Amino acid sequence: MTADEKMKRASIGLLGYGTVGSSVYRLLDEQSIEIAQATGASAGVKRILVRDISIPRSDAPAELFSDDFDELVEDEDISIIVELIGGIEPALEYVTRALEAGKAVVTANKQLLSQKGSYLFDLARRNETMIRFEASVAGAIPIIKVISESMVAADFTSIYGIVNGTTNYILTEMMRTGARYGDALARAQEWGYAEADPTEDISGKDAAAKMAILASIAFHSEVSLDDVACVGIEDISELDIAYARDFGMTLKLLGVAKLYDGRINVRVYPALLDREHPLASVNGAYNAVFLKGNSIDEVMLSGPGAGGIETASAVVGDIVSIMARPVAGRLDYPRTHNGLELFPDDEVVSTFYLRLEVDDEPGVLAQISQVFGEHEVSIESVLQKGRGQHAELVMVFHPVAEKSFGAALKGISGLPVVKGRPAPIRVERDSE
Amino acid sequence: MTADEKMKRASIGLLGYGTVGSSVYRLLDEQSIEIAQATGASAGVKRILVRDISIPRSDAPAELFSDDFDELVEDEDISIIVELIGGIEPALEYVTRALEAGKAVVTANKQLLSQKGSYLFDLARRNETMIRFEASVAGAIPIIKVISESMVAADFTSIYGIVNGTTNYILTEMMRTGARYGDALARAQEWGYAEADPTEDISGKDAAAKMAILASIAFHSEVSLDDVACVGIEDISELDIAYARDFGMTLKLLGVAKLYDGRINVRVYPALLDREHPLASVNGAYNAVFLKGNSIDEVMLSGPGAGGIETASAVVGDIVSIMARPVAGRLDYPRTHNGLELFPDDEVVSTFYLRLEVDDEPGVLAQISQVFGEHEVSIESVLQKGRGQHAELVMVFHPVAEKSFGAALKGISGLPVVKGRPAPIRVERDSE
Repeated sequence: MTADEKMKRASIGLLGYGTVGSSVYRLLDEQSIEIAQATGASAGVKRILVRDISIPRSDAPAELFSDDFDELVEDEDISIIVELIGGIEPALEYVTRALEAGKAVVTANKQLLSQKGSYLFDLARRNETMIRFEASVAGAIPIIKVISESMVAADFTSIYGIVNGTTNYILTEMMRTGARYGDALARAQEWGYAEADPTEDISGKDAAAKMAILASIAFHSEVSLDDVACVGIEDISELDIAYARDFGMTLKLLGVAKLYDGRINVRVYPALLDREHPLASVNGAYNAVFLKGNSIDEVMLSGPGAGGIETASAVVGDIVSIMARPVAGRLDYPRTHNGLELFPDDEVVSTFYLRLEVDDEPGVLAQISQVFGEHEVSIESVLQKGRGQHAELVMVFHPVAEKSFGAALKGISGLPVVKGRPAPIRVERDSE
Repeated sequence: MTADEKMKRASIGLLGYGTVGSSVYRLLDEQSIEIAQATGASAGVKRILVRDISIPRSDAPAELFSDDFDELVEDEDISIIVELIGGIEPALEYVTRALEAGKAVVTANKQLLSQKGSYLFDLARRNETMIRFEASVAGAIPIIKVISESMVAADFTSIYGIVNGTTNYILTEMMRTGARYGDALARAQEWGYAEADPTEDISGKDAAAKMAILASIAFHSEVSLDDVACVGIEDISELDIAYARDFGMTLKLLGVAKLYDGRINVRVYPALLDREHPLASVNGAYNAVFLKGNSIDEVMLSGPGAGGIETASAVVGDIVSIMARPVAGRLDYPRTHNGLELFPDDEVVSTFYLRLEVDDEPGVLAQISQVFGEHEVSIESVLQKGRGQHAELVMVFHPVAEKSFGAALKGISGLPVVKGRPAPIRVERDSE
């Protein structure tokens, strides 16, 4: 038996014991043989931080629980802190103190990483320890490791992601059944795919946090949640879905992170996709990430979005990965030192689809076309349909700077013949 | 500047300078900044082994070339050997000697790994160095790292792969255009998707080697090329393709590696897939691998199959990964020590589709049904079509042990009313 094969033990401090926390505890136990083979050591949870230690909990023995973080961070035997509390505080304080104490950190906290990622990566580097966060984006899909390690030579130029299972489930239901948005949301809540308060998901905020993380590590630059503009799916009508179907397209909430002349643009918005697009067939609560780079073509990873077990499995993967390489190497520090600047949303050139409800009277189309013309927004196709006393105009435009389109849209909205609030949808024609 | 940031240099010895070798040379140069950031060191090719140094070659200066492997392996400055010769000998000898000299090895050689993988993994471990081989399977898709590192906690139960771009291109063409096999193959050759001698690809041998590698690392057991039975696509008729389309299915050359009660079965065969199956939409020269495990649901990775640039990019990724962690950790050794046994092909239960050309006379179906009945093979559906003086029977069977089906098929083939050689196709109903 070599020295390397003698059994060591990694002690883990677990912060939080909800669905994911208890699954991590169970998985570490169930997979102990596998873990020992992969790492040459056993892994055990030594202490679990919870707010109230008086509540009885399943699986873990009562003596493991503590309500005092100091007990964990000051325990020199604990080498890995697994943060599953979520949110910024006190998670930020705990993770900071853990890294400063030289402990490795595994976290599933997308809020924390999308707002404090660069700070924490740097802190890990300065303390010669590691922070890993595979579980923060896209559940079972090992996208963080693929971007930051496997494809480190890919020279990424764009990342497209369907990174929120709730909205993808809702849009898939709308596409499949023609259901209205509200009904599809209700069904998603009934089946447990959407929370009672779904704001975080349907507003695109959750997807924006994940895209900020992906952009940071792919472009090695600081991209914060605040840098990611997002449009949610609340304004998507069943009529848009019907038109999408007529056009042979599908509708997805897309996260897009892209380099424009060496500057980064990251956004989240509903988009019409050709049915041939690789992301078009990612349905239900599934997630997928589609990568392009200068030295790779299109690589896509897909899988179920974050459920408790997928998240726990990703956390255990990170723990194993730390145990198997107890000395931090260069690839163990995500780097955000390229310092690429942001490319303004306004200057992005996009193709838009727009459905307008208008008065059904002569000259309406002329009025509208004129406004677009004044802003040099060029119409590619238009479809007019009578609907009772109103008419519906469905327009698709030639690629145009978002700024010009926004200005034109403002003009259009002011016209008395236009009813309701126009909600344009972007069209992704190819995967460029 | 910390010690870690002082620039070191990794010297590389390159074996072979064909399409991939010269691309690796170029990529290392083009991405030198990126590599330095990721690894804290620069990488340079110090010497290139070729058979004939008198042939002028592009990019690399003439003084780098050598026809003597000793010059590379005995050079203590060279820390990484990149093997791109292919085949067993002399690649096996070179890789063996490199590992024994404590050098890290990067290889794209699927023949070598599928036949000598366990031996080489072990050799790397004993010499406390690393062997990496991302480029050996599925081109740009980082499947080796995902299986052996990212998803080390996944507890894999099955792997389905479309791992040969040539056959997938041919079958996609046949599905799209209704072309005959020979015509589709000719087109693939014309477009450079198939080689002049396509035997390795169309026989399923190439896919079998890749599946052997994937099975070894996913199940941590020795699976050699010889353990993988394969059926190629040579006998696929345009009639089968037409029926597939009628059934709402598609036809793919599938690699399947699966655990049956803790034993491993790995095979390659053409299979009918439901159009809803995630692998069904992987078309053209694309590759995809679909993973299932006890602690993950279905995760799929897809991307372009191995072209020169994808392979080179995977090789550079492996080099970077070695440079970034110069000390081997446990995960750097693929482990094949689980010693799982093989599950016999005969005992696998499969669903079969069978198209038979028979004499168009009364009682034929009765005769055939009787033979299947005698072997307890139960028919799920049958379709009979007159075609001139012959008739065509298209049958789908209930799931049955391959042994029974094989015996029945032998019986059927002996009947005077059956014309030609029956070529059954397996049906994958779901992704179990």
